[in-house]
Amino acid sequence: MTVSAPAGYTYDDHALPASPVSAAELEQLKASVLFTDDDAAALAMAGDVLADQITDVLDTWYGFVGSHPHLVAYFADRDGEPIKSYLDAVYHRFGRWILDTCRRPYDERWLAYQEEIALRHTPAKKNKTDGVDSVPVVPLRYLIAFIYPITATMRPFLAKKGHSEADVERMHAAWFKSVTLQVALWSRPYAEREW
Amino acid sequence: MTVSAPAGYTYDDHALPASPVSAAELEQLKASVLFTDDDAAALAMAGDVLADQITDVLDTWYGFVGSHPHLVAYFADRDGEPIKSYLDAVYHRFGRWILDTCRRPYDERWLAYQEEIALRHTPAKKNKTDGVDSVPVVPLRYLIAFIYPITATMRPFLAKKGHSEADVERMHAAWFKSVTLQVALWSRPYAEREW
Repeated sequence: MTVSAPAGYTYDDHALPASPVSAAELEQLKASVLFTDDDAAALAMAGDVLADQITDVLDTWYGFVGSHPHLVAYFADRDGEPIKSYLDAVYHRFGRWILDTCRRPYDERWLAYQEEIALRHTPAKKNKTDGVDSVPVVPLRYLIAFIYPITATMRPFLAKKGHSEADVERMHAAWFKSVTLQVALWSRPYAEREW
Repeated sequence: MTVSAPAGYTYDDHALPASPVSAAELEQLKASVLFTDDDAAALAMAGDVLADQITDVLDTWYGFVGSHPHLVAYFADRDGEPIKSYLDAVYHRFGRWILDTCRRPYDERWLAYQEEIALRHTPAKKNKTDGVDSVPVVPLRYLIAFIYPITATMRPFLAKKGHSEADVERMHAAWFKSVTLQVALWSRPYAEREW
């Protein structure tokens, strides 16, 4: 990728702390969502399918969030007004997240950035990256709930480049597994010892 | 249903405490997984499709859990030996849960029993219903991870009664939404204030 990194995107930052989640815990979690090397290969294919559709995918998701006041509230200031600069900054990182989900190896660095994403939903780090004064936390229930729309809305985009039904299904299943896996990782700071 | 209730199944118990989750929070959560009356109708259809396949579905899920030592551990005693009576009791309640997911109205009583199910995964109530001495908690990450296998494995069973591809897809999407919604509800005691 030759485009510059979005503001606040610290995936490749050498100062990124290691995740408290161990490689062994990640392997058990991958087994629990049946994630295999075949899924990694299907996601690599999905990355090529999605690369020039990122804006369309994001617009679909932002349309969904924007049409629900109880969701857009997590991007709002203390008066309930959506903070445009915050929405924009997250938009660009969210786009990069799609490609990272498809193209990055699920290694220690990936795990470290998963923890960073997790914390950015909680009082520990929400708002700080973007220097905004929004509500302090995205409730855990919405991270989990989003597994459905983030998975279901992806299928038409995966089907748009003429792949066989079987390949679209493979890519979609791998996407579903990965989103579920990542939300499980993002739930860690909410539950701590019972994670 | 004329069969007797499984041991520990307290859905219809008049002493069941109300859920701390409000009806308004449930509505917002339903909106977040795009759950509508159409989905309730599709689940009613799924209930008829699944009613005589419950044992086959459960055997699939138990086969999955049983083949992963890190999962069967949550049914094991302090020496790591699976507790057969515990596995059996959960098996029967799990079967009832499939039908409840399809057939019960998602009302205050449903919400109250969701909270009961939630607590039975945590130190507050795990093991107590069945009088066993197993590990004290099912980690939150596995509740979330299970959204994938519990959803993906359901499709062939939904397709087994000759329904059109479109109806199978409707039933499967409604099932996916409901499982996601329920796991979001079950996460409440793990996160408490940040739920």
